[in-house]
Amino acid sequence: MEAARRIERELERAIAFATAPGCPPKIAQAMRDSIFPGGARIRPRLALAVARACGDRNPSVADSAAAAIEILHCASLVHDDLPCFDDADTRRGKPTVHKAFGEPVAVLAGDALIVLAFETVARGWIGQPHLLLPVITTISRAVGTPNGIIAGQAWESEPQVDLRTYHRTKTGALFTAATALGAIASESSPQGWMGLGDALGMAYQIADDLHDFAASSGDMGKPCGQDAAHGRPNAAVQHGAMGALRMLQDQIDAAVATVPECPGGDQLKAMIAGEAKRLVPKSLAQSAA
Amino acid sequence: MEAARRIERELERAIAFATAPGCPPKIAQAMRDSIFPGGARIRPRLALAVARACGDRNPSVADSAAAAIEILHCASLVHDDLPCFDDADTRRGKPTVHKAFGEPVAVLAGDALIVLAFETVARGWIGQPHLLLPVITTISRAVGTPNGIIAGQAWESEPQVDLRTYHRTKTGALFTAATALGAIASESSPQGWMGLGDALGMAYQIADDLHDFAASSGDMGKPCGQDAAHGRPNAAVQHGAMGALRMLQDQIDAAVATVPECPGGDQLKAMIAGEAKRLVPKSLAQSAA
Repeated sequence: MEAARRIERELERAIAFATAPGCPPKIAQAMRDSIFPGGARIRPRLALAVARACGDRNPSVADSAAAAIEILHCASLVHDDLPCFDDADTRRGKPTVHKAFGEPVAVLAGDALIVLAFETVARGWIGQPHLLLPVITTISRAVGTPNGIIAGQAWESEPQVDLRTYHRTKTGALFTAATALGAIASESSPQGWMGLGDALGMAYQIADDLHDFAASSGDMGKPCGQDAAHGRPNAAVQHGAMGALRMLQDQIDAAVATVPECPGGDQLKAMIAGEAKRLVPKSLAQSAA
Repeated sequence: MEAARRIERELERAIAFATAPGCPPKIAQAMRDSIFPGGARIRPRLALAVARACGDRNPSVADSAAAAIEILHCASLVHDDLPCFDDADTRRGKPTVHKAFGEPVAVLAGDALIVLAFETVARGWIGQPHLLLPVITTISRAVGTPNGIIAGQAWESEPQVDLRTYHRTKTGALFTAATALGAIASESSPQGWMGLGDALGMAYQIADDLHDFAASSGDMGKPCGQDAAHGRPNAAVQHGAMGALRMLQDQIDAAVATVPECPGGDQLKAMIAGEAKRLVPKSLAQSAA
């Protein structure tokens, strides 16, 4: 089965458990709307791509890890959109969760999605209990403090932040976890794969900065120029659009270079190159050409 | 080592990991202040009491489970205090996290504590990986949706809620998990212990309702009369103070009756009876005598 279908099926299964009969209706709908319809699903596709490159030895385990990573990403979006952060009215072209269901339900839906991610990997790891420990540890580090995406968001509340630390925590951590989990699911060592996640995470963050800097609201399905509005570090603001584009290409090249020798290596490298093209905002791709 | 010291030591260890060098300073301090100094630590003490009653076969595992339960409880308090919920200025006699560090840090500190709870059990279960799966599942169910404490809080956003469902989810779920985890840590079946957690959780919620109904702000270290102010279900409002006191005693009797045959059963029953006396607000204890 192709990756996209595996991911949607696993996410559907996870949400069905979390919103089973007995669940308060509003949070159930809020959780479902946070996950479906999805965005690019780039993190879970990365996890499955690495699992496949390593032989896809435990597909159901890989699926649950991929779903957990996407659920955590969606949880972070729900909380990032809250009035005390981005105060965003729309996300993926729809009202944000707090706009549709109120702020209490949005806080709780984000919380419940974090819990659901851990529950999802536990359920997927039934039959492979020896793999559960590295998985829980990998996810916790990628999401929590001191170096996960929550820490990354918390840097925005500090008077000073190093741009690389900020990007590596806020965005890179979940990409690194995606590659590590893909390797673990296929019973390969995650160490050789962390560099790929790190490089792709940095590339993705630079691309996000470029979009925030350059794109119109209609392209992204969410309001843009948020970084400048909130005084957040942005690579395009700091280095100019062309400088940031060069940084993006450097990161993609670095990502491809890190892919270890493995059965599906060439396929994975081709996928990365393909994804990279999608990352550059259209307006900038033309002016850079 | 006595239970109280075991719990504080394990919580200190968990917070030290989460706030290691590299962590943004404000969220690090917010997380520490959410955990220390603690309240009654009733849930982790219950987990350790059950682990001991079952022979305390894996003390370090029991400690990590107890700490995880308390960390999750503290996470729920940080989020419950937010402006969109209780909008509380003080907790345990100190400014609430959002008052001290701002709302963004409070949202993120609660999120990070949820993640830390899972990381803590994973770390404690090293060497006992076969126990990790039931533990993650037990915790996820107790905290998330459809029936955990997050679901309980989410019932407050619904137009109608059954009082028993509300109490069982918002408060009972974490007590039930505490007893189940204590049993699992000692490699006993959790099934026989769920009734104890359920009964104690209900007792504790009724006691909390009585305090909210009757006690002055100074007694609890937080503002009281919150249930009436927020239109939340409250057993004392619904059944009167004397009716709620009778319900409380019934729950304590039920709790003692559920304790299974085990080496430390009598000691545990005595502890429950002792705890019960502390639950009744002083003003009501005198008028009920």
